[in-house]
Amino acid sequence: MKIEIWSDVVCPWCYIGKRRIEKALAGFEHADEVEVHWRSYQLDPGAPTTPTERTSSMLARKYGQSPAGAQQMQDRVEAVAAEDGLVYRLSETLHLNTVDAHRLIHLGHEQGGNELQGQVKEALLQAYFTEARDVADHDVLREVAVAAGLEPQRVDEVLAGTEFTEDVQADIAQAQAYGASGVPFFVVDEKYGISGAQPAEVFSQVLEKAWSESHPRIEVLATADGGEACGPDGCAI
Amino acid sequence: MKIEIWSDVVCPWCYIGKRRIEKALAGFEHADEVEVHWRSYQLDPGAPTTPTERTSSMLARKYGQSPAGAQQMQDRVEAVAAEDGLVYRLSETLHLNTVDAHRLIHLGHEQGGNELQGQVKEALLQAYFTEARDVADHDVLREVAVAAGLEPQRVDEVLAGTEFTEDVQADIAQAQAYGASGVPFFVVDEKYGISGAQPAEVFSQVLEKAWSESHPRIEVLATADGGEACGPDGCAI
Repeated sequence: MKIEIWSDVVCPWCYIGKRRIEKALAGFEHADEVEVHWRSYQLDPGAPTTPTERTSSMLARKYGQSPAGAQQMQDRVEAVAAEDGLVYRLSETLHLNTVDAHRLIHLGHEQGGNELQGQVKEALLQAYFTEARDVADHDVLREVAVAAGLEPQRVDEVLAGTEFTEDVQADIAQAQAYGASGVPFFVVDEKYGISGAQPAEVFSQVLEKAWSESHPRIEVLATADGGEACGPDGCAI
Repeated sequence: MKIEIWSDVVCPWCYIGKRRIEKALAGFEHADEVEVHWRSYQLDPGAPTTPTERTSSMLARKYGQSPAGAQQMQDRVEAVAAEDGLVYRLSETLHLNTVDAHRLIHLGHEQGGNELQGQVKEALLQAYFTEARDVADHDVLREVAVAAGLEPQRVDEVLAGTEFTEDVQADIAQAQAYGASGVPFFVVDEKYGISGAQPAEVFSQVLEKAWSESHPRIEVLATADGGEACGPDGCAI
C-alpha cells in the first residue's frame, strides 16, 4: 500500500500531520507493507531565498493582525504541536523559500528511496520548527541533509544547480490536479484523499479501508448459472 | 487493463465467448490499452492423446443421450456459433486431450507475448471447431502452430518434451482458486470475474466498470474544511 503526502517544510500543520499518520501507522497491522512517499508543495513559491523577516511578522503584516492576535494563534498551534510531542518555536521561524529544501528531499528519494527521503523530510521539519533554522540557506541545508544521510558531494551538486526543480513542480501540479487546496494532503493508493492534519483515528480508518479494498477476493459480476459454459459434466445447452 | 481468459481448445462456448469479447473490445474506447492473456483449462484432463471416438459419441455414451437428442444439442450450439460468425462442425470433432495444444499456447506467449499467443489460440480453435482437425496429433499441432507464427524448432522441442506442463497446471489451479467451475472464465484486472460466454454487452459493461475504477479520481474521505491545514492564504487556526 502506498501513501503519498504533499507537504511543505514550513507548514506547521504538516509536521503535526506527520506525527499523526506515524501514530496511525504504529498501530496498523500491515504497516510493514506501507510505503510513505513525500511529495513537494510550496505554500509560498514567491518567498525569498534569503529571508528578510520572521514568518510571524510577515503574517501579521499580510493579514493586518494585532501583535496580540498573532501571538494567540502561535500559542494555539504550539500547544497542539506539543500534544503531538513536537516543540515549535513559531516566534522565531523565518519567512523563506523551500524549493531547495524540496530538491534535497527528492535527492533523498533518488539516493535511498522512501526511507531516506523520510529521514531528510523529518530533519528539515525539525530544523525549521524546533530549531528555527534558516532552511533556505545552503550551508544550513547541507549540514541538515548530510546529517540525515545524504551524500555530501551530491548535496553540493544539487544545491549548486537546478536539479529536481521539475520534480518539485510536477508534485505541485499533481496536488492541484487532485484538487488539493492546501497541505498536508494525503493520498492512499492513488484512490483516497485526506486533507489536513486529521486525528490519528481518521488516518487509521482510511488505512483499514484502503487495505481491505486492495486485497480483495474477485467479485463475480456475471455468472453462467444455467447459462453458456462448459464444465466437467459437459456443456450447458 | 488486463483480461485473463481461462479457456479450453475443445470448449464450444469458449470460441463463441472469444468472439463476443472481441466484439466488446472492438467497441471499447480504450481497447488499445487492454491486454488479453489466455489461460489454460482442460475440461477433460483424462481424454486420450490419440483420439478413439468423436466428441458427439463420447457425450451420448456418457450422458445416455439418444442420437436425436445429441443432434439437437449440436444443432443449437452450431446455430449460436453461426450467429457469432463461426462455422462449427460438431458432428466431426474428436474427443481428445488438449494439454499439448495448451503447451503450445504457452510457447506462443513466451515467443511473442499476448499478441502471438492470441494468434495461436485462435488457430487452434479454428482447426478444432471449423476444420474438425485432431489437435492432439503432433503433426497437426506443428502445422497449425507454425502457420500461426511459432518458431518450428521450438515447437518441435516443446512437443518432444514436457515443457510448459507445469504452467498449464498452474493456470488450472488458479481458475479453481478463483472458484471457476467451467469455462470460458474471464477475469479483468484480477478483480472482476465473468463466467460463461456472456453477450458482448455484458463484457462491454464490465470493461467500462473496470476501466473507470482503475483510472479513478481520488475520493476525499476526510477534508480540512475549517480544519488543520495550511494553504496559500495561511494556516487555519
